[in-house]
Amino acid sequence: MRDFDVIILGSGPGGLQAAVHAARGKAAVAVLGRMHKSSLFKAHVENYCCMDTTLSGREILEQGRTQAQKFGARFIDEDVLDLRRGEDGRFSIKLESGAVLTAWSLILAMGVSRNRLNVPGERDLLGKGVSYCVECDGNFFRNQVVVVAGNESAACSGALSLLLIAAEVHLIYTELSVSENLAFQVNSSPIHKHPGRKVKAIVGSMGVEKVVLDNGEEIEAAGVFIELGAKGALELATKLDVALDPETMQYIRANKKQETNVPGVYAAGDICGPPWQMAKAVGEGCVAGMEASGYARRMKTGKSGD
Amino acid sequence: MRDFDVIILGSGPGGLQAAVHAARGKAAVAVLGRMHKSSLFKAHVENYCCMDTTLSGREILEQGRTQAQKFGARFIDEDVLDLRRGEDGRFSIKLESGAVLTAWSLILAMGVSRNRLNVPGERDLLGKGVSYCVECDGNFFRNQVVVVAGNESAACSGALSLLLIAAEVHLIYTELSVSENLAFQVNSSPIHKHPGRKVKAIVGSMGVEKVVLDNGEEIEAAGVFIELGAKGALELATKLDVALDPETMQYIRANKKQETNVPGVYAAGDICGPPWQMAKAVGEGCVAGMEASGYARRMKTGKSGD
Ligand SMILES: Cc1cc2nc3c(=O)[nH]c(=O)nc-3n(C[C@H](O)[C@H](O)[C@H](O)COP(=O)(O)OP(=O)(O)OC[C@H]3O[C@@H](n4cnc5c(N)ncnc54)[C@H](O)[C@@H]3O)c2cc1C
Ligand SMILES: Cc1cc2nc3c(=O)[nH]c(=O)nc-3n(C[C@H](O)[C@H](O)[C@H](O)COP(=O)(O)OP(=O)(O)OC[C@H]3O[C@@H](n4cnc5c(N)ncnc54)[C@H](O)[C@@H]3O)c2cc1C
Repeated sequence: MRDFDVIILGSGPGGLQAAVHAARGKAAVAVLGRMHKSSLFKAHVENYCCMDTTLSGREILEQGRTQAQKFGARFIDEDVLDLRRGEDGRFSIKLESGAVLTAWSLILAMGVSRNRLNVPGERDLLGKGVSYCVECDGNFFRNQVVVVAGNESAACSGALSLLLIAAEVHLIYTELSVSENLAFQVNSSPIHKHPGRKVKAIVGSMGVEKVVLDNGEEIEAAGVFIELGAKGALELATKLDVALDPETMQYIRANKKQETNVPGVYAAGDICGPPWQMAKAVGEGCVAGMEASGYARRMKTGKSGD
Repeated sequence: MRDFDVIILGSGPGGLQAAVHAARGKAAVAVLGRMHKSSLFKAHVENYCCMDTTLSGREILEQGRTQAQKFGARFIDEDVLDLRRGEDGRFSIKLESGAVLTAWSLILAMGVSRNRLNVPGERDLLGKGVSYCVECDGNFFRNQVVVVAGNESAACSGALSLLLIAAEVHLIYTELSVSENLAFQVNSSPIHKHPGRKVKAIVGSMGVEKVVLDNGEEIEAAGVFIELGAKGALELATKLDVALDPETMQYIRANKKQETNVPGVYAAGDICGPPWQMAKAVGEGCVAGMEASGYARRMKTGKSGD
């Protein structure tokens, strides 16, 4: 099955609660993302009402997944690499594996990634060549040399798209953790691959000049993209013109119905900003799930959704 | 102990989650209300992430209460009858027993009461003598005869305050379920008591003319107050000038920080409007608990709270 009513990006507590409510709202629901990438996976939660506090984060997530599946939600353990909206109003969602899914409405529940490298030069050169968003800043490096650091889908797809812009692209990673398809694309591309390596320092004064690796190797470059997580939530949101919270420019702006500025696109959980708490994520997920399934139903039956 | 930092009105999931987060925020927290009056008490919950679905509503609430107590929250199983704000910015909260507590900030988590009698005439005469709010409509019945129906604190305290306005007050109840103190006040007052009775019908054309009881007795009256639950949430809110949602005029208006229009007063859960779901209640409770404890801390240390 490729065509859904509601697709949920993220399988943390926000996405799980949204899945429960959307599926109970009789929508065909797919949930994307990886359980072990949820912030909750390694947490020990004592403050979520009224949960047995002896459960591990992993057990909590597993329980939620079973619950959502019971109501009919389908789980696909892949990251989303690309998003767009078609002429008919439907969204199409490209996965790591290359598969394309469609949905009438989307729920963004990708959490926040704590994505610093914590190496010398990273903080000082932020905005002077150091960036956390290929989508946002890639174009500044036309015909220059760039470095991308990261093991996951964000780094791989970022490096691939930089190939179209930059003169030379270096990918620094310990070990790739992406779908076979994406790994194949990277491996058969002209990206300069540095497997088993980490960035040790970023050097420059007015701007980035070079990147030092943990084996002492140095790469002269004008840009460094730090892409440690899955495909960055904000990058994906940007593709649909979803507006960010104007105060921080770091979170997605959603109203009390969890609607973003884009009709049919909802957001829930950490991605909407602090407090970063499971309780808040499920509360927003509940509302987003109900609203998104209602929207999908109206679109399918031909009534305008907004 | 009588002086708290944060007092939470309501011990359903919204109040419990607020208690957990406020207590963890190092506030001295009291939780009021009755567990068995929570909408959840008799519910069977299957859709709350990521909870074991074999638990009963009662067990869920008990688990939440134990959890909140572990973080230091104090539970007082009484309804609030009155609220006001003192000159120093502190709230004082009068309980059924007559005890008065104080707090720097309040969280309204009193849920919604499904408070219809479902008797003939009730719906047709709504606003023509039938009311669900003594505080709001009591003054329309100056020197007239009024009937109050209900067994709990809302009915008792409503009847007592109508004594100051109306010519004659009748209280219809099967059995009082209030604190000793409140029962004593009612019993020693000139209220006309009709124990063991129910309202069978409300009769009138342009307005209420009489109330028929289940034993056939008839009471000629101009007003009927249906006060089936605890002291009505909206009545209490009104006392502090807390604004309602302008669309429905039935729920408390709160922003994303769960702030009401009154500094220091927060709201969470069903009282803020639909969807009436445990997940939404805990999400709002989490935010309200954190915000209220922060407010109390600022007030105590002398920094202005807003
Ligand atoms: C160490 C630690 C301890 C914590 N302890 C507590 C605690 O005690 N109590 C508490 O309430 N909270 C705690 N938290 C916070 C809590 O984990 C988060 O608030 C909660 O997990 C947020 O849920 P979410 O659904 O918004 O995001 P997450 O749970 O982070 O889930 C994000 C999901 O999005 C997916 N995703 C990301 N990018 C993509 C993409 N491009 N395509 C598809 N999927 C994608 C991921 O695979 C993942 O499934 C803790 C967090 C940490 C890090
Ligand atoms: C039959 C039924 C089935 C349900 N099933 C589900 C379900 O499957 N899943 C789900 O998510 N939700 C379900 N719900 C809804 C869920 O119960 C509510 O959304 C949830 O309980 C709301 O929590 P709350 O804290 O806002 O209010 P409540 O849980 O209703 O708690 C209100 C609290 O306020 C107190 N209170 C009231 N007045 C006063 C006063 N004057 N002074 C002091 N305290 C006061 C009460 O004593 C009580 O403790 C169901 C509801 C019902 C009625």
